[in-house]
Parts: sequence; structure tokens; C-alpha cells
Amino acid sequence: MPSSKDRRSALAVILAAGEGTRMKSQLPKVLHKIAGRSMLGHVLASLSAAETAGVAVVVGPGREDVQAEALRLRPDARVFVQEERRGTAHATLAAREALAAGFDDLLILFADTPLVTPASMSALRAALKDGAAVAVLGFEAANPFGYGRLIKDAAGDLTAVREEKDATESERAITLCNAGVMALDGRRALELLEAVGCANAKGEYYLTDVVEIARARGLGRRVVLGQESEVLGVNDRIQLAEAERIAQDRLRRAAMAGGATLVAPETVFLSADARIGQDVVIEPHVVIGAGVEIANGAVVHAFSHIEKARIGEGAHVGPFARLRPGADLGAKSKVGNFVEIKAAAIGAGAKVSHLTYIGDADVGAEANIGAGTITCNYDGYFKYRTQIGEGAFIGSNSSLVAPVNIGAGAYVGSGSVVTKDVAAGALAVARGRQIEKAGWADAFNRTQAEKKSGKNSQ
Amino acid sequence: MPSSKDRRSALAVILAAGEGTRMKSQLPKVLHKIAGRSMLGHVLASLSAAETAGVAVVVGPGREDVQAEALRLRPDARVFVQEERRGTAHATLAAREALAAGFDDLLILFADTPLVTPASMSALRAALKDGAAVAVLGFEAANPFGYGRLIKDAAGDLTAVREEKDATESERAITLCNAGVMALDGRRALELLEAVGCANAKGEYYLTDVVEIARARGLGRRVVLGQESEVLGVNDRIQLAEAERIAQDRLRRAAMAGGATLVAPETVFLSADARIGQDVVIEPHVVIGAGVEIANGAVVHAFSHIEKARIGEGAHVGPFARLRPGADLGAKSKVGNFVEIKAAAIGAGAKVSHLTYIGDADVGAEANIGAGTITCNYDGYFKYRTQIGEGAFIGSNSSLVAPVNIGAGAYVGSGSVVTKDVAAGALAVARGRQIEKAGWADAFNRTQAEKKSGKNSQ
Amino acid sequence: MPSSKDRRSALAVILAAGEGTRMKSQLPKVLHKIAGRSMLGHVLASLSAAETAGVAVVVGPGREDVQAEALRLRPDARVFVQEERRGTAHATLAAREALAAGFDDLLILFADTPLVTPASMSALRAALKDGAAVAVLGFEAANPFGYGRLIKDAAGDLTAVREEKDATESERAITLCNAGVMALDGRRALELLEAVGCANAKGEYYLTDVVEIARARGLGRRVVLGQESEVLGVNDRIQLAEAERIAQDRLRRAAMAGGATLVAPETVFLSADARIGQDVVIEPHVVIGAGVEIANGAVVHAFSHIEKARIGEGAHVGPFARLRPGADLGAKSKVGNFVEIKAAAIGAGAKVSHLTYIGDADVGAEANIGAGTITCNYDGYFKYRTQIGEGAFIGSNSSLVAPVNIGAGAYVGSGSVVTKDVAAGALAVARGRQIEKAGWADAFNRTQAEKKSGKNSQ
Repeated sequence: MPSSKDRRSALAVILAAGEGTRMKSQLPKVLHKIAGRSMLGHVLASLSAAETAGVAVVVGPGREDVQAEALRLRPDARVFVQEERRGTAHATLAAREALAAGFDDLLILFADTPLVTPASMSALRAALKDGAAVAVLGFEAANPFGYGRLIKDAAGDLTAVREEKDATESERAITLCNAGVMALDGRRALELLEAVGCANAKGEYYLTDVVEIARARGLGRRVVLGQESEVLGVNDRIQLAEAERIAQDRLRRAAMAGGATLVAPETVFLSADARIGQDVVIEPHVVIGAGVEIANGAVVHAFSHIEKARIGEGAHVGPFARLRPGADLGAKSKVGNFVEIKAAAIGAGAKVSHLTYIGDADVGAEANIGAGTITCNYDGYFKYRTQIGEGAFIGSNSSLVAPVNIGAGAYVGSGSVVTKDVAAGALAVARGRQIEKAGWADAFNRTQAEKKSGKNSQ
Repeated sequence: MPSSKDRRSALAVILAAGEGTRMKSQLPKVLHKIAGRSMLGHVLASLSAAETAGVAVVVGPGREDVQAEALRLRPDARVFVQEERRGTAHATLAAREALAAGFDDLLILFADTPLVTPASMSALRAALKDGAAVAVLGFEAANPFGYGRLIKDAAGDLTAVREEKDATESERAITLCNAGVMALDGRRALELLEAVGCANAKGEYYLTDVVEIARARGLGRRVVLGQESEVLGVNDRIQLAEAERIAQDRLRRAAMAGGATLVAPETVFLSADARIGQDVVIEPHVVIGAGVEIANGAVVHAFSHIEKARIGEGAHVGPFARLRPGADLGAKSKVGNFVEIKAAAIGAGAKVSHLTYIGDADVGAEANIGAGTITCNYDGYFKYRTQIGEGAFIGSNSSLVAPVNIGAGAYVGSGSVVTKDVAAGALAVARGRQIEKAGWADAFNRTQAEKKSGKNSQ
Repeated sequence: MPSSKDRRSALAVILAAGEGTRMKSQLPKVLHKIAGRSMLGHVLASLSAAETAGVAVVVGPGREDVQAEALRLRPDARVFVQEERRGTAHATLAAREALAAGFDDLLILFADTPLVTPASMSALRAALKDGAAVAVLGFEAANPFGYGRLIKDAAGDLTAVREEKDATESERAITLCNAGVMALDGRRALELLEAVGCANAKGEYYLTDVVEIARARGLGRRVVLGQESEVLGVNDRIQLAEAERIAQDRLRRAAMAGGATLVAPETVFLSADARIGQDVVIEPHVVIGAGVEIANGAVVHAFSHIEKARIGEGAHVGPFARLRPGADLGAKSKVGNFVEIKAAAIGAGAKVSHLTYIGDADVGAEANIGAGTITCNYDGYFKYRTQIGEGAFIGSNSSLVAPVNIGAGAYVGSGSVVTKDVAAGALAVARGRQIEKAGWADAFNRTQAEKKSGKNSQ
């Protein structure tokens, strides 16, 4: 919905019909992910941040998967199919039905240009509000080769977008380039788009032609300046990795600006929706997937992998910890090395320090889970829960066969296989008795060593 | 203490009173860490390397934590409080009592500029010895915008430090910039500092004014050239990460120059005090914390995390190993994947290859610790030790309940929970007897599969 | 062997006699590794790709290890010893016996310049075919300081290789530099090399002198342009790391170009022989050693370490997985966190999800291995195999003492130590009985807490 400060109505058309053959993938290009979110999802998220009203997505024929992703993220989106591939203007006109409705601003975006910022989208709309009929997102290219150049007249108005191959030598020296993204005056959009012809080598309808059409009609054309980093188009996996790098750089800087220490930000991977508190310390080599919240003062040690989990205030995680979906760590709790937590609440101050799997469980406050403890939560068909009371002590290398309930303050002896509930304050032991055979190992060692030397000498 | 080659006495004043609000932290800025050491600690360590005699630290009011860090690292430091924030000259004068004592050279350093090298500190002092009354550390800035420019006269003497906003266009073109760090002739330091006025927009006393004061009095002013990388000031977490990067780069280069292979140095994190031998190989993705010594020919495989530990000659560690404080690995020993060692000596040639926790233990030479072994060293209140004799064999998935003693050459059967000492050369087994129920699993599988399909079809 | 399209015969002489003292290593320089392969091995592999016929390797005296590496990789190589170190031309002539045989093209390569591409080798030979007697690999240096400059005459022919110290000011401005690598017309090679004198400061025979000798004789001299990145010479560990970076960059780009997603390529380390399928996704922080094959659609999660292993189509590995030599993962199988697989086949659809060691085993299709399972495969002397049938379910924290056979569809109760075979469809349980002592933990907690507070108050 439009914000109160901007009452103009808008439609965004997202072109998502590209085939992406250079990705060499079964997956359509725009569903490849950056920072854990599809490229299409990035464009939709930025549109939401820029408070655009309507969204139309143009997909290729048979691309139900792209349609589904669009509708999953924006149930109100209208999806159109471009049956034939005949250029960007043609693709935009596939959404003709949506274009025909009345609105002030039309934004034309590309699902494979996923890093355009909400600020640039708003700036394009501001240029329309300011009187332009066409506003084009431009950028200063470090190396302009291959990009369309933005040609301006003496008055500073955009006159054309000139492709590399059509450019004169002096035009090639221009470093202001076309990012592809464009905004059109909503009342004239359909008329401008329909005026685009296909009298060119490829016989395609190019969106960029609207600039010269608008000029011929005496309509205002404006360039809005964006950053080169936001206009990166993704056509292959190398560019996908580059887009990931840019997205990560943004996320890391935002986390640091918010008061988190990332000791080595270049080794920390964040998802687009990560929420990271103040005075959080994240050591090198950490991967944070979707749906993660880390409260103030928590420490994530190196080599930790966290998805759909919550880390409470002042908690310590890792090194070598894996928090899977549904892990919910209480304040000042501790999850140590080679520990996996899944669908489990760990109470405040509880410790799960080493080599443990806690799945489908509730661990009470201040409980201590010994090294090598396993919650046996699965019988091959169903999952069962384990309850561990406050202040309970689970001896090392124990197996807790769910469903099972360990009472508050109870004590489970090391190496026990617990299959029945343990009362609060009780001791449970479930293990074999120790027997010893004197001299056995000496004899064994002699025999085996002989066998081995015999084997070796054969 | 001054070295024999430099008999001049010196005092260093470290300004550590900055509030660091842009860090957005409960922790005072100068206690944030780089390469495992506080920023204040870095300045103190470089001063020690530069063999400066006395140290005065100026802290903000109520900053007992900064004072404590200073005294922890330099028990002979004098700590002064700057009660009001009125500029750098004012801050320096908070140490007036120390300044009044007799010494040859005064160094003025900043705790939030932690990477200044001992070489630059010595060079500043050399400039004083050479006759200058004021020596300023300068650097060639890649992008000088925002820095104070160092203005020289025709003779090459420093005439002023000009702030960006006060600079003429030609002065702005100067790329030689002020690093902040300065040295003053000890006999004139107090007099120069006291001459600084506050007739400026902010009403503050600026240290840089001593340059023009010295010039007016006909005293020598010298620029000493440092590197841009060493003068980075840390004001926010992004700059903290940049300082970490520079510090790591230095540490990695030093390790490689010393004859260690860092396969991918950009993924290896070292603490400032790491000692790494010759022909050590460190694979990618390794974190080495404080107090680590790695002897010649040892190999640290990928994904290892090491703190306060010693790795013997030719030992192999990792991948996925965690060595915690007090881990002491003998020559040619091996600590493998998903293994944690804490406060334990691992004998020469002993192997702890997988999924094991050895804590508070002594493992004899050539012993073999099976996968999944856990030393149960903690009862919730106290820690107990485990002794494993030379050449002992601990079967996989065993629990050793400390205090316990496994004799030399003894053999513990797999899956045992050992609660009593095992004699040398003996076999100990402590586990349940295997029973079998024919057809049980077939029946179970039928029932559960039915339940599941029932559940799914509801 | 020469390809059908290029019938010219060729010999390559690889100079591998350098001492490499700046490496500070017991290992000879050319045996240090890049992307898991010795530097000498890289040159030999590129030669094979460039289809050169004969190979001669010149080693230093007593370097049996270098000789062995050469013969291991190219059993047909001839190895010569340079007894005295008297310059590169002298080193080449150590292979005089090989040079005397008839062939069309001579390539002279350096084992410490391991990144020269097959394309550049072929281009050098093409220059010979085109009439040159001497072809020199050159490159445009970003910073030419220290390199020999390639001096050309007006006609564009190479006239000399000028060392930094002998260059005039205008020659120093030349950025076209000598990469060291050279090709000589096979019929004139010996004659040119023997014409090189040692009338210079060091009294050494320099290979580069053949350029001026050829010019004096009116023979053609050509420069072939390579990339700066391929001509990096490795003299110390910092350059070794730089070469690793370049090699990794090539390998990563090739994997991405082939249709694999490397989310953060700069954190993924590949060996030179890795085979990676289409739509494979490799998350950040992954190390892939030698002999790895990853089939289409497999996912390698973060923090995985893989060597000499095969990952089947659509399989999921990690995070925190270690696949050791002989791990062979079936289609759609899953190996999860803190799991080590060694010399074991994991059947299609089987799951080994957490904290497990499977070594020397066969796991049937669709089997489920519970958390904490250990195959006890070693008795200190010999290794034994574990067989797990299709669809078997191994309860968590079980120990399977090999040799042992778990039948298809069998069920092992959690925490069991299985020492005897389990029939198909049967249940096996092998663990202690659970006993409980009511109130014991409450009493224990009281006593220990008192002891502890007593201890603390002392």
C-alpha cells in the first residue's frame, strides 16, 4: 500500500520470463537464491519496502514454479505469461491487462536484477512525480564496455539509450550506463510501449526505445543515478556468486552498523531476514540461514550453522554448533561443540556442551546435559518428545529414548539408556556391570601382533 | 626499559577516554578486541616492543574496566582520568603529573589507533633525538578526504596540520595526512601542551596545534612517514573489522615468512601471540586463539579451532578438531574429526581419531581411543581426572567415568561404561548382553507403517 | 603424444633444480602443493593437456624425492641432475642427452612456475611452427619493477630480455615482461644454448641470452602474450598462497561455468581433479580434496570436508560432514552433521544424519542410522567390516562391533552394543536394565553443593 507521504498509485511489472540457459540449470533462473531468498523474492521484497501498490509478474510459458513463488510471496500479484520471446517491451505488454488499469507510476523491473534498492525504486517514482514521462535508472560503470550508454542532450535530458554496437566512438567514452530498470508515467505507459517497433536486426521490441519515442513526443526523460552494485544482472553462476557477495556485504554492514561485532565479516554468511542484536559477537566462519534471531550480547563462536532458530540474551553457541529449525536457546544458555539442537527449547542457563543431539525436547533451566547425550526421538516412523526438568543432570554418553520424562533435579548415570521416566530428584542408571579379565589384553596383543606381522611378511 | 642502543628515557601517554558511541556497545571502545587482544592491549604491546619506559593511560570518568585492562597488561602504568572531554591536548594534560617528571621523549598515542607499529614509534623518537621538538606520524592517503593534511614549508619542515574544512583547494590536494600519533621533546612537552588554546568553533584544545606553536617558537617539526594501514582509527564495528583484517594480514604473513604453509591465509585467523613452527601446514578455515604453540612439521587440517593449546612436532589435528585450554598434544599424535580435547595431555603417537571428548585426562603414548569415547569428568559440581596408560586401547563408544585409571596396555570393550580402574594388560567390558526377538522388526514395521498411513489419510 | 592436428614432435625440459631456501622447508620447493597437487605435478599436467611428446626433468643433486614425483606422474619422463648451479641455460643443458635427439619444438618450463596454461604452451609452439627460432612467453605486468623487460625492435621482433638493473629509464617504462618460459626451434636448440656465455657479474649461463644470440644469427624471435596470473613464480610461502588463490579461482570458475552453484566461491577449496555435476549446490566453507566426484543435483552443505569420495545424484551432505577415502554415497542418500564416513557404501536413500562414524561398512538402501552410532571397525591391529541390510533401523547411540551383519529390515534398540549378527526382520537389544534410586539425586546435590561451598569459602 502507498505510504501516507506518497499518495500516488503505482504498478510494478517484474519481467521474469528469461530462460537463463547460461545458468545450466533445471531450475528457472529467477528462482536461484541469493542470501537464502530467490532472485524474484528479492525484487518483491524491495518493492514492498518501496511501498508499491500493485505487482504484475511476467513469466515464461509453463513456468508454474515461478508463478508459485510469486504468489507465495505476494498473494495479490497478477501473473502473466509471455508466450513468445520478442523483447523486453513485448514482455512488458504481456501484462497489458494490468497496464490498462489506472495508476500514476509504472515501474518495470527485472527478476534477474535482484539488487536494485527500494531507494532507487522510490527515486524513479519521484522523477515521474517531478514531471518526467520516462525515468531510467543509470549508473556510472567502472568499465562501460557492453552496456547501453545513456545519451543526454545539452539540457541534461536523456535522449537515447545507445547499445555498444550502435555507439559512436565518443558515445563509447560515456560511462553513464543503462541499468535496464525504468519507470513510466502510468497514464502514458501503454501508449509509449505500444509505439515500440521491431525494425531491428533481431526483430524484437526493445523497452529502451520508449526513450526516443518520448523525446519525439516532447515528453520529459530523466536519468536517476543508482550504484553499479545494485544493477548487476545475473545470467550465469559466476554472476550469481557476485550478486551473493554484494548482498552479503550489505547484510554484514547492516549488522555491524547495528552494533554487532563480526570479527571477519567476509567469512560470515547471513540470510536476508536475520535479526542480530547489539553487542552480539560473531566469530569467523559462521553461516546464518533464514529465520534467525540473535538477542543482545549473545556470542556465536566459529564454525556454527544456524537456521530458523532463536538465541537468547548472552547465550553462547559453538564453536561447531548446529542449530536447526525450532531451536530456541534461553538466556545465558550454552550450546557447545559438535552439538545439534532441533525443535527443542533449551532453558535459561542450561548447558549442552559437547557431542550431543537434542531433538524434539524441552530442557529445563540450569540443566546440564553431559557429552555424548542423544535424545532418541525417532522410531523410523514417528517423532517423540523428551522432557528434561530444571536442574537435571544427564550423565555423559546417555541415550534418552523418547517419549521420556526426566524429572527436575534428577540425575542420570553416565552411559545409561533411559527408556522409562525418571522421578524428580531420583537417580537412574541403566548400563551393564563392569567385568574384568586379567591379562586378556596382554594375550590378545601378543596374538594379534603375531598375526599382523605374519600377514605383513607374506 | 630502554635498550642499550637507546639510552634516552621516554614516556608514552595513551589516550583511552573516547566514548565510542558509534560502536553501539556496552563495552568501552578500547576494550574491543583485534586478533584476540584489546585495542588498548595492542598499543601497550607495541610500546613494549618499542622499549618505551613509562606508560600513562588517560581514561574517561568511571572507566574502571579500562583502568583494569591497562594495569593487567602493564602493572607499572599510571592511569589518569579525563573528567571532561575538551579535546586531545586537554586529554594529554590529564596526565600532567606524569608529564612533569623528567624524560627525553614523549609519545602520544591513541588506544583506538591500535595498529601503529613499534618501528613507527621508534622512528618518531629518532626524529626527536635528531633535534625535532615535535614529530608527527604522517601517511600517504589513498583518499585524503576527511583527514588533516600535513603542510610543509619549502625546507620540508612541518608548518601545520590543516583540517579538511579549513584547507584551501591546493592544500586539499595534499595526500600526506596526519595519523594523530605524535612525539614531543620531553623537556618542552608540558610547555607546548599548555600553550594550546581553545579559540575554535568547538572550544576544544587540539593536540595538533602544538605544531604551529613549535613553529612560532622556532623549534624543529618533523614528519615521520608511516603506512596508511597502521594508522586506521577504529570508531565503529566496520572499522573494527577492517583493523582485524589488517592485523590478520600481518600475522599470516609473519607465519608464512617463518616457513609455515597457510593454504588459504585469508581463511585462517591467528591470535597476536601464536607461535607457529617451520613446515607447519595449516589448511583452510582454521581459527587459532590465544596461547597456541604449534611445533615444526605439525599439520592443522581444515575446520579446526584451537585455544591455549600446544601441538607437538609432526602431530595431526583435525579436520573438525577443537583443542581447548590445556590440550597438550605429543609428537606425532593424532586428534581427528569431531574431537574435543581439554586440559589433557595426549602422549606421543597416541590417536584420538573421532567423535570423542577427552577432558581432564592423561593419555599415554601410543594409546588408541576409539570413536565415540567420552571421559565423564564432571558430576555437576567437581571435575575428576582420567588416566589412560601407554598403549591402552579404548573400544569405541566407551564412557570412562572419572576418577578412573586404565592401566598400560589394557583393553576396554566397545560400548563399555567403565567406573572402576582397569589393571594393566587386562580386558574390561561393561555393557548389556545382546538379546534378539525374531520377526519383531517386521511386525513393528507393519504396525507403524499402517499407523502412519492412517495418520496421513486423516 | 602429439594430436592428429599437430604432427610436430616436441620435447619439454622442466627445470626443477631450484633450492627454494626462501620456502624455509625440509621439502624441496617444487613438491609443495597447490590445489592438492605438487607444483611439478601442475607443470606435468599442463604439458599432458598441451600434448607434448617427451619430458625431461632437471633436478638438483640428491633430490630422489623430486625424481620420484616426476616418475610417479610421468613414468616416461627422463630425469637429469644438474650437479652445479650455474644458471638456467646451464640447467637446461643438463638434459643435453635428451636435447640431442631429433624433435621439432623445445619447451623450457620451470617447476616453480606452476600455473602456465596449456594454451600458452601451445601458443609458444605455434610461434615456432610459424617460423620463429625463439619464442618467449611475455605478460603485461601491473607493476613491472623487478621483472626482465621484453625489448622489441620497430618491426615488433624481440631483440632482448633486459634485466631491471641493466635497463635504461625508457626501457624501465616498458610493462611487457619476461615470464621465463621459452620455446626453441628443436633443430637449433642445442646450438643456441651452447652459444650462451657466462661473462656476467655472477658468472652464470642465462637462458634469456638466447634471444640476442638468435638475433645476431638473423633468426626469428617472437613474444607470445600470456596472463600475469599464469606466470607467477613461487619462491616463498606467501607466493605459494598467491598461486593457490589463482589456482582456486580457476577451479571455482570452471565449476560454476559447468552449472554448479558455489554460494561463496572464495570459501570453497577444490582439488585440481574434482568432478562436479550440474545443479550441484556447494554452500560456503567447504573443502574438497583429491579424487572427489559429485553427481548432478547433490547438495554439499557448509563446513563439509570431502576426500576421495563419490556423492550420488541428489544426495545431501553436511553441514559438518566428513567424507574420507572410499566413501560412496548413493542417490538421494543423506549424510548429516558430525558424521564421518570412511571406506563405506551408503545405499540409495539411506540416512546417516548425526554424530556417527561409519567405517568399513556397507549400508543398504533406505536404511536409517540413528544419531551417535559407531561402527567399531578396529581392534588395534585389523579392520573389520559391518554389513547393514536394506531398510534396517539402527537405534541411536548403538555400537556395531565388526565383523557383524545386521539383516535387512532389522531393528537395533537404542544404546545397544551389537556383537553378534542380527537376523533380517529381527529386533536386537543389548543394553543394561534401568534402575532408579528415589531421592538419590536430591541427597547428592545437597552433599556436593555443601562440599563446593566449603571449598569456595576456604
